[in-house]
Amino acid sequence: MDEREALRLLGSDLSHAGDDAAVVGSTAITTDMLHESTDFPAGTTRYTAGWRSVAASLSDLAAMGADPTAAVAAYADEAFIEAELRAFVDGARAVCATVGAEYVGGDLDHHSEFTVATTAIGNADRPVFRSGASADELVCVTGTVGRSAAALALFDRGETDRANELFQFTPRIAAGRQLAGPATAMMDSSDGLARSLHQLAEASDCGFAVDGDSVPVDEAVESLDIDRWEAGVHFGEDFELVCTLPEAALSTVETDVPITVIGRVTDAEAGVTVDGEPLPDRGYTH
Amino acid sequence: MDEREALRLLGSDLSHAGDDAAVVGSTAITTDMLHESTDFPAGTTRYTAGWRSVAASLSDLAAMGADPTAAVAAYADEAFIEAELRAFVDGARAVCATVGAEYVGGDLDHHSEFTVATTAIGNADRPVFRSGASADELVCVTGTVGRSAAALALFDRGETDRANELFQFTPRIAAGRQLAGPATAMMDSSDGLARSLHQLAEASDCGFAVDGDSVPVDEAVESLDIDRWEAGVHFGEDFELVCTLPEAALSTVETDVPITVIGRVTDAEAGVTVDGEPLPDRGYTH
Repeated sequence: MDEREALRLLGSDLSHAGDDAAVVGSTAITTDMLHESTDFPAGTTRYTAGWRSVAASLSDLAAMGADPTAAVAAYADEAFIEAELRAFVDGARAVCATVGAEYVGGDLDHHSEFTVATTAIGNADRPVFRSGASADELVCVTGTVGRSAAALALFDRGETDRANELFQFTPRIAAGRQLAGPATAMMDSSDGLARSLHQLAEASDCGFAVDGDSVPVDEAVESLDIDRWEAGVHFGEDFELVCTLPEAALSTVETDVPITVIGRVTDAEAGVTVDGEPLPDRGYTH
Repeated sequence: MDEREALRLLGSDLSHAGDDAAVVGSTAITTDMLHESTDFPAGTTRYTAGWRSVAASLSDLAAMGADPTAAVAAYADEAFIEAELRAFVDGARAVCATVGAEYVGGDLDHHSEFTVATTAIGNADRPVFRSGASADELVCVTGTVGRSAAALALFDRGETDRANELFQFTPRIAAGRQLAGPATAMMDSSDGLARSLHQLAEASDCGFAVDGDSVPVDEAVESLDIDRWEAGVHFGEDFELVCTLPEAALSTVETDVPITVIGRVTDAEAGVTVDGEPLPDRGYTH
């Protein structure tokens, strides 16, 4: 059973599973676990690890249109090194500060591999789920995609300063708050744009017709010798917001980051296509 | 650097570190990470693992006098087995149901060792911290101590049914809610009664004079060939509440579980003593 099947299994039991965060009352809550071997390439600083792991949970709140209040982290490693711990906390606090949330510590634990579990909570007065898209609406993405794929290539080359910088992404809280209301369906692109579109299509029982040229691939990808489409559409880990909204609503949304229209919602029968061809439901499996 | 030193280091930076849960506005939040090798002995069922890991976080909320609303878990393992996942979720939901909280799922992740990170949130309208004890108050403990030490001995003997039962402890939410107000300082006994007393003493700048005979060691310990005092006072993992309160307040507290007076708060200079002898600050390091 792969992760997606397992999540689906749990989703059949749990009413809140299957969205980026669960909503209890007006509180959204989300949790993520990250490991050194799969999530933090060699060269990732502990500051970046603190920033990125907390930011991943904040991104889930952004995808619900929620306003984060607090984040915690459970930090496990073979040994606790003061400079590493301080750097991790500094990174976690810094990303929380960018979105007005408070990093309030957590748990420490000895473990054979550097592992972090982060949880973020926030106010979700108008939560946006994955299930509300309707045919003929626009499908949009915030910012640019492919930055994490570019960062990986840079880590591989030993260009760790630039790679760490790319890894410290800004959770799209402000955009998510602006989109809460106009957006009919939303999630983040952590599994890659392709998988996000397929998941939105499944939850909303719709299809998507994407215009390939409109996908905003980051310039960091363009400057590297990596496959532009793979990096931008399938690699994932970019934490942008993917959302649908009625065409008339687009002009009412003012965000601090560009929102790019990449296509239209279609009927479910049409499936998820790019330039008329099926878009494979393939990406990075966490 | 051991875990306690590391936590102290983080505590100097983070205003909320050093209590069982952080309080943000009127919301309490806490997170814990547990691993198969250190926290789930051979024979622990996934139902018990789900129950116990979520209960550990609920216990932290109880220690703040908070009323839990929701819990999440990040579940990592080498492979996802349907029956194991379902059992874990069933256990997590069951313990949440006992305290009126909602288990709302979480994250799934491939990892070399079965690892769980749980987070619980709740309303803390009258949070009880570790720092409010004053000399001459009573020091009390809920329920009985030593059950987890007994469970470990039973797991070792292969008596896994009884061991699993002991491992599925009831988080002291109801007692914590009753004690929020009367109690001047509170924490849970997850690090063992001895360490809890030392941590309360440090936070409150006080000492404790404990009457050894009054410590309510569980009958499960009495029936096993294990050291009664070690099991009840140093082993830990029992998740009872340890609190201080004025003598006059004791009769006003009505709880669903016995509260035992085990001694009195003293001046800091007197230290933490049992029957007049220093109580070593020794326990289980997570």
